Amino acid sequence: MSLTDLFDPDSIAVIGASKTPGKLGNDAMANAKEFDGPVYPVNPSGEGEVYGYEFVASVGDTDADLVLCCVPGQATPDVLEECGEAGVGAAVVFAGGFAEAGERGQTLQTEVRNIADEYDINILGPNTAGHIIPHRNLFSSFVPGFDDIESGDIAIAAQSGGVGVTATFQLDREGYGTAGMYGLGNRANTDFDDVIPILDEDPETDAIALHIEGTKEVDATIEAVEAASTPIVALKSGNEMEEFVQAHTAAPIQAYDRYDQAFTDAGAVMADSMTELLDASHVLAQCPQADGPNVGLVTAQAGPGIMMADYLDERGANFPELTDETRARLEDILLGFTYDRNPVDTGRPMPEFGDVIDAVGRDDNVDIVLVYEIFEHSLGYPVEELEQLTSDIDKPVVFTVAGPNEALSDDRKRMEDLGIATFDSPERGAYAASVLAETSR
Amino acid sequence: MSLTDLFDPDSIAVIGASKTPGKLGNDAMANAKEFDGPVYPVNPSGEGEVYGYEFVASVGDTDADLVLCCVPGQATPDVLEECGEAGVGAAVVFAGGFAEAGERGQTLQTEVRNIADEYDINILGPNTAGHIIPHRNLFSSFVPGFDDIESGDIAIAAQSGGVGVTATFQLDREGYGTAGMYGLGNRANTDFDDVIPILDEDPETDAIALHIEGTKEVDATIEAVEAASTPIVALKSGNEMEEFVQAHTAAPIQAYDRYDQAFTDAGAVMADSMTELLDASHVLAQCPQADGPNVGLVTAQAGPGIMMADYLDERGANFPELTDETRARLEDILLGFTYDRNPVDTGRPMPEFGDVIDAVGRDDNVDIVLVYEIFEHSLGYPVEELEQLTSDIDKPVVFTVAGPNEALSDDRKRMEDLGIATFDSPERGAYAASVLAETSR
Repeated sequence: MSLTDLFDPDSIAVIGASKTPGKLGNDAMANAKEFDGPVYPVNPSGEGEVYGYEFVASVGDTDADLVLCCVPGQATPDVLEECGEAGVGAAVVFAGGFAEAGERGQTLQTEVRNIADEYDINILGPNTAGHIIPHRNLFSSFVPGFDDIESGDIAIAAQSGGVGVTATFQLDREGYGTAGMYGLGNRANTDFDDVIPILDEDPETDAIALHIEGTKEVDATIEAVEAASTPIVALKSGNEMEEFVQAHTAAPIQAYDRYDQAFTDAGAVMADSMTELLDASHVLAQCPQADGPNVGLVTAQAGPGIMMADYLDERGANFPELTDETRARLEDILLGFTYDRNPVDTGRPMPEFGDVIDAVGRDDNVDIVLVYEIFEHSLGYPVEELEQLTSDIDKPVVFTVAGPNEALSDDRKRMEDLGIATFDSPERGAYAASVLAETSR
Repeated sequence: MSLTDLFDPDSIAVIGASKTPGKLGNDAMANAKEFDGPVYPVNPSGEGEVYGYEFVASVGDTDADLVLCCVPGQATPDVLEECGEAGVGAAVVFAGGFAEAGERGQTLQTEVRNIADEYDINILGPNTAGHIIPHRNLFSSFVPGFDDIESGDIAIAAQSGGVGVTATFQLDREGYGTAGMYGLGNRANTDFDDVIPILDEDPETDAIALHIEGTKEVDATIEAVEAASTPIVALKSGNEMEEFVQAHTAAPIQAYDRYDQAFTDAGAVMADSMTELLDASHVLAQCPQADGPNVGLVTAQAGPGIMMADYLDERGANFPELTDETRARLEDILLGFTYDRNPVDTGRPMPEFGDVIDAVGRDDNVDIVLVYEIFEHSLGYPVEELEQLTSDIDKPVVFTVAGPNEALSDDRKRMEDLGIATFDSPERGAYAASVLAETSR
């Protein structure tokens, strides 16, 4: 059993590879073809090539480390035997009809697990959409379009492949990509406690997003979360609809509360929605840890600033008094025209907006800098001032952007490159700041 | 006093118009120039033209119905006197420094109000970003880029101009546009109870989104909400930070609870965030009212479906048993392979996905149809089946889309054209369904 073969294989075989568009074995090849090492389409009745790779009759004719099993559930045990004999170290099993599908499926899964254990094969799944690691050009999934996913710094380990796929595409739409997506599915012998330590050690992964419906390995998972130094955000799903959940990934029925307290104690952030899961992961991946829960809020528009203050206040964040030095500096810049307490409101974007952020950011009472500004083309965002500020202080900066589409492009990207986390609605920015407050020392 | 001159003027004057980029009077002209009727840039020291319109020395030389006052607060009373003499019926006052700014500002606002009352002028503001009505090409605002906002079916009335602007750009980024955005600011003599009845009667407005920090006209506002037949969604902000809120739009300090109960009783939906405000407005504008709170959930991916079921269950929505007839139809389509209760899970997108939605949508036990599907290019979304279904049943359909960027383009737009509300994350789709359940008969 080698997790290395799952996470960093030298060669891949696609068992059940097909030339026919729409077939699982074709969709999997369409993604696998991006791999830099050897890719073997395996099919005894395959002739010629698929995506430029010549068909191979048997996995025994390959040196594959990792196989993608594109065969029906019932055929899986035989295929795994062959893989075992061929020295394969890891297998992604897409098929359903295992432990999630009643007693017969449970028996089939036990059989698969026994074969895997006998031959030391790490199984991802069964009943999974697979995994992708864009920075290794490894796309072990049948999901169309996955080969276009860019590399990023958030890794996703999802019990539900569908949730993992949804999260991956959502990150991609927002321009972030992923450090890796792992659909664990039925977790035959690869569970959260196996994956978390690998992701924790992965230098590409700066935050780990977990989607959990339920696992028998709760204690080991919590230990893995506790041991990790990479920030972890978790979403516990399947708190209702028990029958439906069991029919999905064979999750044992476990109360949310059991996870909530233990995960929080272990240092994870519990998210309530897909967007929270990804936003919390993003802000923790982007920003340095906050030294405390004290938020300095600078806004160019009072109304959204008030909405954010409401949001943070409900979640127990603190808005400290600014120091006399900061207030004197703000008074010089703002001439007493607008509100110069904390939150600091400049009334409208202005050329001095960057100086206002700088003053608040350098205030010793402030641990977390939260900014709101509606983009105006003639001013842009204060990227240069922020570049200086972020190089001088080791505090997280969250910049909430608004405005026309262009507000979400170049300047925003430049701020992200500075290690500033950007979000596009008042509640998303405020949520990110609340996560920083929650995870502060 | 004529609200018609505010909402549907025949001609506009921009007082303090300027050729200098970045000046308020230039930004306002940049938007006002889109108007189809006469636009008069007024400035006694103006020479030549600005944006192709010839300067006029005085508002008295124009037949303007509506003026945009781009002058400092202190100059506003004199300008309004002139406007009154010239027969102007409505004025947008952008300047701050009025009731939000202490005693002197309060005195100034009283003076402005008295003049407005004397001459029957409707004041929008002071201390506002103005208003826009794209379908009339009326852009009475200084906000750069506002002239590109498209026409839509949601009207926004925001106490904070900044919130109104944020909401407008957010709608625009999502491709929806607005039926009108009204920044009420300090509400000198035009308050929520004046605007709501106008929006209620506007045939372009299918939902009204309110942002309220606080108004002395609470009772009249609640009466207006109750009298309206157009769906209304409200976000009450400024529950904390009292001093900051007063310094913003001179809102009286009023507890959230006072609004929450009264607005809910009056038939409004209370939203907790910008995205909820706009999503609730969107689903109510798009969809027919639900006959009850019974949700039929069809998902092509179990995991996100479970997340949505969790969300809805917490908010008291109901997942009814499907009729025997529906289950027999589903059994024919799905062959018992996946979960055919409610939620119905097809396991993956499939050519028959539209038939599954059709079966659930026609079920007599189902009031609200909620769908989740990750886009696959080879299948697309089941637009044709949905076209037939939505023409046969008078039930709301919410379609939650996921996938690569293309998932959010053509097919999604075609579904919106059918009166289906689409959302791009599990929690947004589930929230929309919860709003339909809450507002069902």
